[in-house]
Amino acid sequence: MRMRLRPAEDFLLLTVFNMEKIYILGGAQTDFERNWFKEGKNFIGMMTEVANDALKDCSIDYEEIKRLNSDNAIGGFVANFGAELYLNQAHLNVFMDEVNDAFIGMPSIRYESACASGSAAIVSAIHQIGVTCDVGIVLGMEIMKSLSSSDGAKVLGAAAYFEREAVGRKYPFPELFGRLALDTVSKYSLDESEYMDNLAKISFKNYSNARRNENAQTRKWFMSYEHARNRGVEFNHLVGAGLGVSDCSQVTDGAAAIILASKKYAESYCKEMGMTIDELPYIAGYGHRNAPVSYSKKIEYAKDSDIIIPWTRQTIQDAYKMASVTVDDLDLIETHDCFTSSEYAAISCFGITKPGREFEAINDGVIFFDGKLPVNPSGGLIGGGHPVGATGVRMMLDLAKQVSNKADTYQIKNAKTAAMLNLGGSATSNFAFVVKR
Amino acid sequence: MRMRLRPAEDFLLLTVFNMEKIYILGGAQTDFERNWFKEGKNFIGMMTEVANDALKDCSIDYEEIKRLNSDNAIGGFVANFGAELYLNQAHLNVFMDEVNDAFIGMPSIRYESACASGSAAIVSAIHQIGVTCDVGIVLGMEIMKSLSSSDGAKVLGAAAYFEREAVGRKYPFPELFGRLALDTVSKYSLDESEYMDNLAKISFKNYSNARRNENAQTRKWFMSYEHARNRGVEFNHLVGAGLGVSDCSQVTDGAAAIILASKKYAESYCKEMGMTIDELPYIAGYGHRNAPVSYSKKIEYAKDSDIIIPWTRQTIQDAYKMASVTVDDLDLIETHDCFTSSEYAAISCFGITKPGREFEAINDGVIFFDGKLPVNPSGGLIGGGHPVGATGVRMMLDLAKQVSNKADTYQIKNAKTAAMLNLGGSATSNFAFVVKR
Repeated sequence: MRMRLRPAEDFLLLTVFNMEKIYILGGAQTDFERNWFKEGKNFIGMMTEVANDALKDCSIDYEEIKRLNSDNAIGGFVANFGAELYLNQAHLNVFMDEVNDAFIGMPSIRYESACASGSAAIVSAIHQIGVTCDVGIVLGMEIMKSLSSSDGAKVLGAAAYFEREAVGRKYPFPELFGRLALDTVSKYSLDESEYMDNLAKISFKNYSNARRNENAQTRKWFMSYEHARNRGVEFNHLVGAGLGVSDCSQVTDGAAAIILASKKYAESYCKEMGMTIDELPYIAGYGHRNAPVSYSKKIEYAKDSDIIIPWTRQTIQDAYKMASVTVDDLDLIETHDCFTSSEYAAISCFGITKPGREFEAINDGVIFFDGKLPVNPSGGLIGGGHPVGATGVRMMLDLAKQVSNKADTYQIKNAKTAAMLNLGGSATSNFAFVVKR
Repeated sequence: MRMRLRPAEDFLLLTVFNMEKIYILGGAQTDFERNWFKEGKNFIGMMTEVANDALKDCSIDYEEIKRLNSDNAIGGFVANFGAELYLNQAHLNVFMDEVNDAFIGMPSIRYESACASGSAAIVSAIHQIGVTCDVGIVLGMEIMKSLSSSDGAKVLGAAAYFEREAVGRKYPFPELFGRLALDTVSKYSLDESEYMDNLAKISFKNYSNARRNENAQTRKWFMSYEHARNRGVEFNHLVGAGLGVSDCSQVTDGAAAIILASKKYAESYCKEMGMTIDELPYIAGYGHRNAPVSYSKKIEYAKDSDIIIPWTRQTIQDAYKMASVTVDDLDLIETHDCFTSSEYAAISCFGITKPGREFEAINDGVIFFDGKLPVNPSGGLIGGGHPVGATGVRMMLDLAKQVSNKADTYQIKNAKTAAMLNLGGSATSNFAFVVKR
């Protein structure tokens, strides 16, 4: 049985046609420096705090939630990677009723795509809002400090191809992204020490940006460019394939929540709030593609491509197309710097430079805070922290803040259009979004 | 900030209006008797086998999948409850590329809502098909025989409120559904021994139905009514709050997959296959509601209701309404008999009898295979087996088979309309669907 319904171009047009704007009313994140178990709080305390803060940020009270719920017009979209392994708890979505009785009865689902779980929840919300609900609460969370770093590394191995890429390895992911670093050097015949210095600049940049962000995990930590490039020493030991601790994002405890709404609801909301709908940020487009799960297969299948992770670039291009933007329209980017090597590779995936010329955007200062196109002004995952299930939602929250001029101490001036890239596994699950105002 | 967009009635109308029919082209399940590790096969082998069989069932080959994928017109919806705990593996959705290279690049997400994970994936597919893809492959799976039954019971505790309802308990779920049994007796002032005999009849029915189904786990097992009602003896020991082993569904290894399509694709497909679209089963409506997570809170909040699990009834009513059917239109039901007490409670939730009069449908033989409205003709979870992540998908497959006259040895004659109920936790996640032809 063979048929061909329509060419890819038509498909994308259809998508654009069907996708109504999804408005972001507001949201909140927890301080990623916190250790919740040490505070004597559990995941329900975390969900409660972030949901309350997100609703407060939008001036929506629980009476309104109750009303929406009794109309069956609100849905819950809960993102989490591994509470089964960290907390012995699955089915996290159903704990919304423990946050507040106003949520009793609300339909919700838990979404998981490793470190891109937050984006998986957002994509699902986009599809339901305006169809079976008017409002969606997207809540991503992870408690990771419940485990030691070695036990934690084993848990994270579950996001890779566990049997082939994690069993018996101390740090599966640093190794995989260390291989990405080596493969990048080899694919583009780069000078290895210059490349490693560029990775150190990315690390230094993201730590520096984090110092501006009062919710960033590392805002009080020390990181200089010299420290970041000096790997394999006492305070910057090697973690895999040449990368140092300074190249890694930080596991932590944290949650982020955003309140999304249909155009219809957003219009009533703005009327009530005495604002115009043009003041609200909205999701203008998204992309979602998977690469082969095993890192070796990725590299093998991409060997004839001009880019090292072609599925990631395609994901971003899909999002650009749906949102009718190009890289030149962007005012800032939040990207998935689980390691410095992934931010490096993302530079050409976003089209900031040609593939193999990513170093130009670093040497010219383009991606720095006061550059032409700042990347990770929040501090990203390296500076801000990476509570896995929360990350995609935190990125979307930062995009919404930036384009609404609400990013405060880390605001990029006059930002109107922003993009994000959220990865799961070794760039296996790829999600990109464009947010505008 | 308070507003009221529209009354509930309007909302449901809107939903009906927006929901295009989602067609079920075909599907497959594995034999739930199998033990995959003993066969030397892993979860990828399981995914491969069930995906191949599902595509074969629809006469769709991998060339067609490749074409759909290159048009970005196919999505993967993978349901799984606890591979993290059973197999140390999360991010299951991204293994589709290991099933076949034709899936490389295809977007997919993993959906989890405990034992209702399969339905969570189906709901998400419903929302994406016809918008961002034409075809969806929904694949639910679980490998559970990797653990001993006591370790397995601990894992299943993660689907309940682990800290309050599972820690230190040998069999958390049998206890919770045993409490449902006791609370049912108490709420409706039933004669306890008659009630327990009725549960035994449900068990006997589902085991008997399973004997007709060549994929049912227990098709060769022994179960008589006398055996089922004789609890607390050597071959039927007590598992919690009065329930015996005969009242429990069976953990097992298994997968199910269905191929869903938009109307547009279904029309081309039918043309190619030389059939009319009226011959295809389709999803006509669904309901999705959550109850409070803790069992005690459920009972407390439902104490003034005429029904013991009102959120479950509401879910089914939502599905009926969206599909424009009543219970009188149904030819059969597949319901979530994780325990006999849950099937008993579902009888009034479906509206087969009034609340408190469920025994009538048992005593009159209504829900038996040759009754007026057969419930679980496949054998259900008790007779058929309950590989958690697969169950919702397996139910949907059975509905599609029945209304297409393809259920073979367990076909209900002239079936045209069927409904299913899939529960997660102690009836916390509730999903219902109506399938028609």
